[in-house]
Amino acid sequence: MPTVSKVLNGRADVAADTRARVEELIRRHGYRRRRGSGAARSSLIDLVFHELDSAWAVEVIRGVENVARSEGLSVVLTETGGEKTPRDDWVDSVLARHTTAVVLVFSDLAPEQRGRLTARGIPCVVVDPAGDPAPDMPAVGSANWSGGLAATRHLLELGHRRIGVIGGPRSVLCSRARIDGYASALDSAGIEVDPELVRHGDFHVESGRDRGRELLLLDEPPTAVFAGSDLHAMGLYEAARELGVRIPEDLSVVGYDDLPVARWVGPPLTTVRQPLTEMAEEATRMALTLARGESPPNPRLDLATDLVVRGSTAPPR
Amino acid sequence: MPTVSKVLNGRADVAADTRARVEELIRRHGYRRRRGSGAARSSLIDLVFHELDSAWAVEVIRGVENVARSEGLSVVLTETGGEKTPRDDWVDSVLARHTTAVVLVFSDLAPEQRGRLTARGIPCVVVDPAGDPAPDMPAVGSANWSGGLAATRHLLELGHRRIGVIGGPRSVLCSRARIDGYASALDSAGIEVDPELVRHGDFHVESGRDRGRELLLLDEPPTAVFAGSDLHAMGLYEAARELGVRIPEDLSVVGYDDLPVARWVGPPLTTVRQPLTEMAEEATRMALTLARGESPPNPRLDLATDLVVRGSTAPPR
Repeated sequence: MPTVSKVLNGRADVAADTRARVEELIRRHGYRRRRGSGAARSSLIDLVFHELDSAWAVEVIRGVENVARSEGLSVVLTETGGEKTPRDDWVDSVLARHTTAVVLVFSDLAPEQRGRLTARGIPCVVVDPAGDPAPDMPAVGSANWSGGLAATRHLLELGHRRIGVIGGPRSVLCSRARIDGYASALDSAGIEVDPELVRHGDFHVESGRDRGRELLLLDEPPTAVFAGSDLHAMGLYEAARELGVRIPEDLSVVGYDDLPVARWVGPPLTTVRQPLTEMAEEATRMALTLARGESPPNPRLDLATDLVVRGSTAPPR
Repeated sequence: MPTVSKVLNGRADVAADTRARVEELIRRHGYRRRRGSGAARSSLIDLVFHELDSAWAVEVIRGVENVARSEGLSVVLTETGGEKTPRDDWVDSVLARHTTAVVLVFSDLAPEQRGRLTARGIPCVVVDPAGDPAPDMPAVGSANWSGGLAATRHLLELGHRRIGVIGGPRSVLCSRARIDGYASALDSAGIEVDPELVRHGDFHVESGRDRGRELLLLDEPPTAVFAGSDLHAMGLYEAARELGVRIPEDLSVVGYDDLPVARWVGPPLTTVRQPLTEMAEEATRMALTLARGESPPNPRLDLATDLVVRGSTAPPR
């Protein structure tokens, strides 16, 4: 009994396989903590970021804040400092503050960490999963494949044939889906994917600039690039400026995200709008539904993306 | 005694003048809650934003997160939804969660709200005060006047004589200081301030565009504009693009803040770097010093600003 109690209370001092056995039993028997037993819920919701270093983050925070505020909850914000999973002492602190639910952005929990939260009835939902989330992990993403397809089709319709792409890290699902959409659009147009034109960055400005420069310095450079993220596109703008390549006259660029900056740059960026605020709102609502002990209608949700055409794309010369 | 206890415990059901009298007595007699008495401190720190809608916010959040993480604290984030002071139920929730300290950004507390926090030993520090903070309110800002002076001097040195400015709201201290710096630089150069060239926005892109358009459509438009914020500058870029005014050939632009976007726009923006992350770190350290019952060495601090010269400024034609 003390061991079961430890697992239920999310304590760390239980061997991993013992914990797994107890959790399996809890699942099998459908144990549910009595309402009112144990510590009272606080009015906090935890939001965990992989890294907090772009306008991207504000869009997501605003979505979580919107829903939290309307439910009378306050948001606790944690940055994992670039790690894909938070540290174990983060789990300790979440348990100690009796948080209502956890929303993870572009990050994941180790199975053991998730087990400790689940045992205490704290649900987790992932926004825009970075890797392959566990099959039973609720998640809200966007239609990445369709977005990659739409971006590339737009460039094909303008008459481009040599189209590059700068994706995110190879291991990141959302990036793979965007690149697959790109490849599929090329394939439908009867164009073979040239591996030389497919580059991988980390979604930040610097890698957009470096990978972009590589593409522009090829013997046969692309006339258009699907940049994979707006920040990649900003880096590509910088590379183009440095090399005297004009956008859109010499090079068409399509971004991904539609951050506010996309409207401000010169020329304004054609991009795939990812509804980041709405995705975060949906994930927060889903987490709170789970926290009430109810099942969300769709625990895996992809919101639609739109192509927003601005000044950075034009027919090739 | 029950009334004094209510005031000390931050309860709302005490008449304002009674509360004021009790607080005055507490101050006069130097009462300090015994360590360990009352509820235990949680490991939370509260961060309050006026509004969460620009890259500006991420810079500040990162600073608070940096210090909080190193102290083992978690950050609770609240957006007041554009109001200059948070709602009273925010105070209730801060008291309920036994937060360690409060950092307010570009916002303030009503005296009664601050009294309730002070009575419970929860210190508050303001980053970049929006108005005139109470004389005993610790605050971290930046050298706004010097920044306005440096921006305008740079334009004067390039040979500009007709220089416009787009400030923030008239009531906002940091904006007044920047405009005073601008006026002072003109004055040193023997140029009288033309009231037609002084406009007021709200620091966001849209007002930069609208006030910028007004300036560019004057019979005698300025050849250079100190935009007052990077977002104003983005709006001014948009107005210039719409009117076919080239930057920097026809118009020099200086921003304020040095958000990441300043490097990405075309041409890259000359701007006054405001060390937002460092300001937030300083404010958080100050709040935690106060929470330990110690006095910070400088409860009013302005960090230095630097002019960063990029491609948006050039001699007038």
